[in-house]
Amino acid sequence: MTYLDHAATTPMRPEAIEAMAAQFGKAGNASSLHASGRAARRIVEESRERIAQVLGARPTEVVFTSGGTEADNLALKGLWWSRARRRVVSTAIEHHAVLDPLEWLREHEGAEVTLLPVDAGCRLDLAALDAALREPDDIAFLSVMWANNETGVLQPLDEVVTRASALGVPVHSDAVQAVGAVPVDFAASGLDALTLTGHKIGGPYGVGALLVRRDLELTPLQHGGGQERDLRSGTIDVPAIAGFAAAVELAVKEQADARARLAALRDELVAGVLGAVPDARVHGDPTQQLPGHANIGFPGCEGDSLLMLLDAQGVECSTGSACNAGVPQPSHVLLAMGCSPEEARGSLRFSLGHTSTGSDVAALVAAIGPAVERARAAGVRR
Amino acid sequence: MTYLDHAATTPMRPEAIEAMAAQFGKAGNASSLHASGRAARRIVEESRERIAQVLGARPTEVVFTSGGTEADNLALKGLWWSRARRRVVSTAIEHHAVLDPLEWLREHEGAEVTLLPVDAGCRLDLAALDAALREPDDIAFLSVMWANNETGVLQPLDEVVTRASALGVPVHSDAVQAVGAVPVDFAASGLDALTLTGHKIGGPYGVGALLVRRDLELTPLQHGGGQERDLRSGTIDVPAIAGFAAAVELAVKEQADARARLAALRDELVAGVLGAVPDARVHGDPTQQLPGHANIGFPGCEGDSLLMLLDAQGVECSTGSACNAGVPQPSHVLLAMGCSPEEARGSLRFSLGHTSTGSDVAALVAAIGPAVERARAAGVRR
Repeated sequence: MTYLDHAATTPMRPEAIEAMAAQFGKAGNASSLHASGRAARRIVEESRERIAQVLGARPTEVVFTSGGTEADNLALKGLWWSRARRRVVSTAIEHHAVLDPLEWLREHEGAEVTLLPVDAGCRLDLAALDAALREPDDIAFLSVMWANNETGVLQPLDEVVTRASALGVPVHSDAVQAVGAVPVDFAASGLDALTLTGHKIGGPYGVGALLVRRDLELTPLQHGGGQERDLRSGTIDVPAIAGFAAAVELAVKEQADARARLAALRDELVAGVLGAVPDARVHGDPTQQLPGHANIGFPGCEGDSLLMLLDAQGVECSTGSACNAGVPQPSHVLLAMGCSPEEARGSLRFSLGHTSTGSDVAALVAAIGPAVERARAAGVRR
Repeated sequence: MTYLDHAATTPMRPEAIEAMAAQFGKAGNASSLHASGRAARRIVEESRERIAQVLGARPTEVVFTSGGTEADNLALKGLWWSRARRRVVSTAIEHHAVLDPLEWLREHEGAEVTLLPVDAGCRLDLAALDAALREPDDIAFLSVMWANNETGVLQPLDEVVTRASALGVPVHSDAVQAVGAVPVDFAASGLDALTLTGHKIGGPYGVGALLVRRDLELTPLQHGGGQERDLRSGTIDVPAIAGFAAAVELAVKEQADARARLAALRDELVAGVLGAVPDARVHGDPTQQLPGHANIGFPGCEGDSLLMLLDAQGVECSTGSACNAGVPQPSHVLLAMGCSPEEARGSLRFSLGHTSTGSDVAALVAAIGPAVERARAAGVRR
């Protein structure tokens, strides 16, 4: 099996599995006062400190959630309610975990939502941002992803934060694709809130975090026992948090080496695919990209068909975000970059990760030519 | 270590650990179209079917969540928004995972919240329910727990559902303590929504479910990729769901035997404690109780001190709900049963589970007399 879909989810690292398994079978709710409870609580607080340490945050700024989607929902709806302003500003290329809460805020809460455009390379249009920030007192928050999940293109967050902070607008960033792939330092970023998740970096599913600046007020979304400084109630998932901490530490520690290794592999992948399919087109500014992403358009192909043809050869990849899989709509990201619906529908995302090797790339390069030929023939017949 | 706090959390069953571990290290997001994604999806759908099967639900009625707190929040806020009525009705003895969302609905959304009283045995007052249901068209929902977490007292759900259904008021029940302890059949219960969670029945933390009747409309709380029939977005936690299914199946399969075994152990525990501390007082109607719960008041003692004295002897128990631990407030459940604040503060919950044995009971019975004596002396000195 050639797995080229690490941006959708990447297999757990053995270190994360071990850290998690070490907590299995233990008694003790982390909120309980007895010795077992205190032992569970220690694991949680040590994990919080380790994550904070490698991401430039304070331990109290780490709020554990059930994953990236919950962290995004908490940031956006939490800021909407705590700040009670008329408008929210984000980008047209966000993940659905941001876009869908924004849509709910629009429909259900009457928010005026501005989605900023990007250029053909998938980079945020800063002139449009300046225009959107003209009446900053009306804005509840700005949410701009650290790097796009479909193209891997990094966003100009420094410029975003500089502008927004000067105007007093809090900034959230969904960084689930960035952590472990590029340097991420919460304090240095100037962000007010940042989303990360376990399963994208070799940790478990079902756990993530919102880093929240200490002075940021946020209305909680999930009410109950008052865990996580009352910002996120619910029994604390001790094993998952232990596994998450192991994965974050490892991902950050190995980030520089992994980046060089994966970027080289990715360049090999792109060159190999372009060699096999000369009219294929790489999407996204290659100078501003995560190391493991390649989004490639195959003219005359239907992406889902091509995906299934590659899958039949044991090569696994994605059309856009996995969360939209099964829904045959062109990627909103590629459309925002100016692609036609046909171009967008004919594109695949290949994403590399910690288990990727040269033979994965070779398997794709061997399979892609015949698969594209067949997909094109099917397209013509239809 | 003598662990008598299974109602707070119970250690994972080996079968659940195995089912979970079997999914670790695998690639494949359950929303992905390729073979790894489809394999992950199969695990999830098989788990959904197994859970539905043993709980009298249809597979489409099982909505996976991150746990009981999320499931409660989804049921309550989801019904509040989908039904858009003025009032909500629940009981004074609910867990904070129900009470706190209700409080939020009151403060933030203007809901008129009625919390029904209970009698001295911790059973819902049906006359008060009848009175509360007098203007049913104004009521968004009724939420009554299956069995109370502090006293283990079962609630008259049949009577509740009969009344509410006749009036068209949807009923939710938090059944996290009941599943695996007494028979739970969703279809037969007539409930519209039911909460269960993994870590109370030997499954993992971080996973639970809301059973939702097919025709019930619910506004989702967490927006994103559209997983779980769009009712609960967020990447699906495949390993946790597999472990959860194993635990639910086992808990239901063994329920009748476990019930007999634990009730006998519990009776032994109560008799032993009353033998050692003759003026101790058992809270909650013993004819209407979960098998593993015993809530006992120790006059003249401060519960937290007594808890710590027992803990020093290796005996672990709880004062009320673990989620409130650390907050030295008398239990709202015992207060609702008519206890004075002093009585409520002097009570401990002992709860048995799948690892409990006669020697656990013996250890408590040996430790309780001296601990109570010491706690009383400390109380007098203070």
